[in-house]
Amino acid sequence: MAHPQTRPGRQLVLNLFIYPGGHHEAGWRYPGSSPERLLDISYYQDLARSAEAAKLDAVFFADGPAQVDNIRYASRFRLEPLTWLSAIAAATTRIGLIGTASTTYYEPYNLARLYASLDHLSGGRAGWNIVTTAVPQASGNFGLAETPSHAERYARAAEFVDVVTKLWDSWEDDALVADAASGLFADDTKIHPIEHVGRHFRVKGALNTPRSPQGRPVYVQAGSSDDGRSFAARYAEAIFTAHQTVDSAKAFYADIKRQAESLGRSPDHVKILPGISPYIGSTEAEAQRLYEELNDLIQPAYSIAQLKQITGIDFTGHPLNAEVPLDAFKDAGPAKQVASRFQLVVDIVKREKPTLRQVIDRLAGARGHYVAVGTPERIADEIQLWFENKAADGFNIMPPWFRGGFDLFASEVVPILRRRGLFRHDYTGRTLREHYGLPRPESVYATEARATA
Amino acid sequence: MAHPQTRPGRQLVLNLFIYPGGHHEAGWRYPGSSPERLLDISYYQDLARSAEAAKLDAVFFADGPAQVDNIRYASRFRLEPLTWLSAIAAATTRIGLIGTASTTYYEPYNLARLYASLDHLSGGRAGWNIVTTAVPQASGNFGLAETPSHAERYARAAEFVDVVTKLWDSWEDDALVADAASGLFADDTKIHPIEHVGRHFRVKGALNTPRSPQGRPVYVQAGSSDDGRSFAARYAEAIFTAHQTVDSAKAFYADIKRQAESLGRSPDHVKILPGISPYIGSTEAEAQRLYEELNDLIQPAYSIAQLKQITGIDFTGHPLNAEVPLDAFKDAGPAKQVASRFQLVVDIVKREKPTLRQVIDRLAGARGHYVAVGTPERIADEIQLWFENKAADGFNIMPPWFRGGFDLFASEVVPILRRRGLFRHDYTGRTLREHYGLPRPESVYATEARATA
Repeated sequence: MAHPQTRPGRQLVLNLFIYPGGHHEAGWRYPGSSPERLLDISYYQDLARSAEAAKLDAVFFADGPAQVDNIRYASRFRLEPLTWLSAIAAATTRIGLIGTASTTYYEPYNLARLYASLDHLSGGRAGWNIVTTAVPQASGNFGLAETPSHAERYARAAEFVDVVTKLWDSWEDDALVADAASGLFADDTKIHPIEHVGRHFRVKGALNTPRSPQGRPVYVQAGSSDDGRSFAARYAEAIFTAHQTVDSAKAFYADIKRQAESLGRSPDHVKILPGISPYIGSTEAEAQRLYEELNDLIQPAYSIAQLKQITGIDFTGHPLNAEVPLDAFKDAGPAKQVASRFQLVVDIVKREKPTLRQVIDRLAGARGHYVAVGTPERIADEIQLWFENKAADGFNIMPPWFRGGFDLFASEVVPILRRRGLFRHDYTGRTLREHYGLPRPESVYATEARATA
Repeated sequence: MAHPQTRPGRQLVLNLFIYPGGHHEAGWRYPGSSPERLLDISYYQDLARSAEAAKLDAVFFADGPAQVDNIRYASRFRLEPLTWLSAIAAATTRIGLIGTASTTYYEPYNLARLYASLDHLSGGRAGWNIVTTAVPQASGNFGLAETPSHAERYARAAEFVDVVTKLWDSWEDDALVADAASGLFADDTKIHPIEHVGRHFRVKGALNTPRSPQGRPVYVQAGSSDDGRSFAARYAEAIFTAHQTVDSAKAFYADIKRQAESLGRSPDHVKILPGISPYIGSTEAEAQRLYEELNDLIQPAYSIAQLKQITGIDFTGHPLNAEVPLDAFKDAGPAKQVASRFQLVVDIVKREKPTLRQVIDRLAGARGHYVAVGTPERIADEIQLWFENKAADGFNIMPPWFRGGFDLFASEVVPILRRRGLFRHDYTGRTLREHYGLPRPESVYATEARATA
């Protein structure tokens, strides 16, 4: 069967961002949700199979090693990504598997093993979303009196990535021989202790497992601060980011691509992927009604507590329908908060002069990510606009609730993107690197060996 | 169909100990082995499905966070157990999944999450083999100048187990409500920060995931030193151990059960599981030939290096067919070696006055575990003898090579054990605790709440 060709050149990336209960904070209450199955692996395996049937690039799990506050009214527990994705790998064959893990609270040797293993057992579908973990509750779970500073976390992250990169490269691709006749199992001249000695880590290596199908997992990153951007430009192959407007996303896109290029990297090898939370209806009015139905399920006391976590400001007592004064933010700052999320709220207040209720609704929708409300055509238009205007290379799809919120996107929006030649009809590769159009990196030790030969 | 009854009371436990390439050090070279599939998850999923078809209790993976020496001639890399078992969980429904992880080189919060997740996604089939990691190469991968002392490792292990136990208990069983109608997601009065402050760890908690089906994974332990035994008697629900004779195993069995009982525990809730490596032939001569065929594949240079790792003594140059002098051991000691493995070699030399070749063959067979060579009836006799004489509650089956070495055991030995009423015809439970006949522990916080009510 002949398909209209995907346009040559850039290829739209679409990931499914899986969040237990959905990305709207009350999504788990929405009719058709299955809150009784939130710990049932088959529920997530089914979801990943649906994403694979829609030919999406990857599924993605966020993470943080702490129980955050406000669990009373929202599904804010965590599924451990490495184990969960390994079980999903077993139920799928093509879709990429991106898990988040913290450079602040993991040991590089342990983390290198987990991702190498996920890449092996999935046949080359692993991605690592590199985070430094700002959530203040985490430090207390790891013996620290307080969260390390932003700068300190990023310094550790950079060294961490250097260490695990060397570990993933420490077996050259052809080190494993396994020749029964001669009895040679491995060519140990191609297995390299990494002998890393740095400010944060001393790691001898080598890794205790052969090199994985992709060589290394795909490096994903999500920081939007200055430190985060320069880190991403240096290391990331895909960047998850939150933008409320196409202009903000365009500026971010241009900045990252320019920084990557100035470091000698191909800008095509850094995919910019904003989040988008689609509220889909067959008419604009129906979509708007859907959005309002979900917002009607919000518990304001919960939302005000969440807003306090992001901004440090307690709006308890402020009337829901009164405008949020910009003044309220002037003495506050992102001391203990995620800097980029704090700024995002300030920008909304500055730009839109919203009521407290409107701020709450906006954040409830997708924690500060872009909320798109409309018909399938309108959502597809929006995606195309961002893609063609170099505001995005693709998107993290953040369904307000599961499964319905995703099923609507897969059945209504994806076919439009496909008809417009923006999205693949079928996979052309087997690995996540192939889906993203990224090269497979050679081991640094193989390169060294050639240089000295 | 009526089956002969399994005898009332004690139930034989059988685990499959999966070791890439087989437990004989040259097993990966044996005809029918698949060294080209050692990193192929479907190979291990198939193996686990076969073990499940034979109604075994569990599959088990050893582990250590380091690349050990002597990989040139033996399949001595590692599969990361948590990810690997998660993918195996997805391909099976009943069999237990026991993975090894180190208390010396993991953070308790990270490890608690991984095992809770494995228990969730497998429907209650997780077991944790608690090790303190003696292998000297590991410390250098975690920034340590040397391996912590035996006493220090066990002190940390005890505190580590206390911490993760509290983390696994930190959500009471009924804390997750997920009631869409009322909007109550979790009863946060039943989620408990653990506020642990100890010599090795400060961990606030709570865990960030609801309590798992088994409450906690089954606690398994493998130490045979004095520290190891008292640790096991206090915490372990199953003990993996290595014995060359039924008398040695009986003494160990009696000691552990007595220690457990003196701590107020039921001796039935500590399963003693020695390793057994079966070389099965339809006649004794055929079994012996099989054993010799595998030993003929050994590379002596490799084996002498291995013996040096265990004993600290270099036998290079000692004629293979000359007796090993007991004198050689008098100035050596288990300084950097695993104490119990060192002693095991000394005992063999003392008892059997073997040649160097014989010592090498013995260790090649199963790294010091019991090697049983004979017909299926003879292997079954041996298992029955150990079981009925309280030398074992069951066994870790250590096939010399895969898959053939296991398939023979499953098809030839298991049916005999079943006919003799020693082993189950089918699973009667769904969780590993149920297979082992262990109770499901209540959360310590639920107990506290009742006590203060």
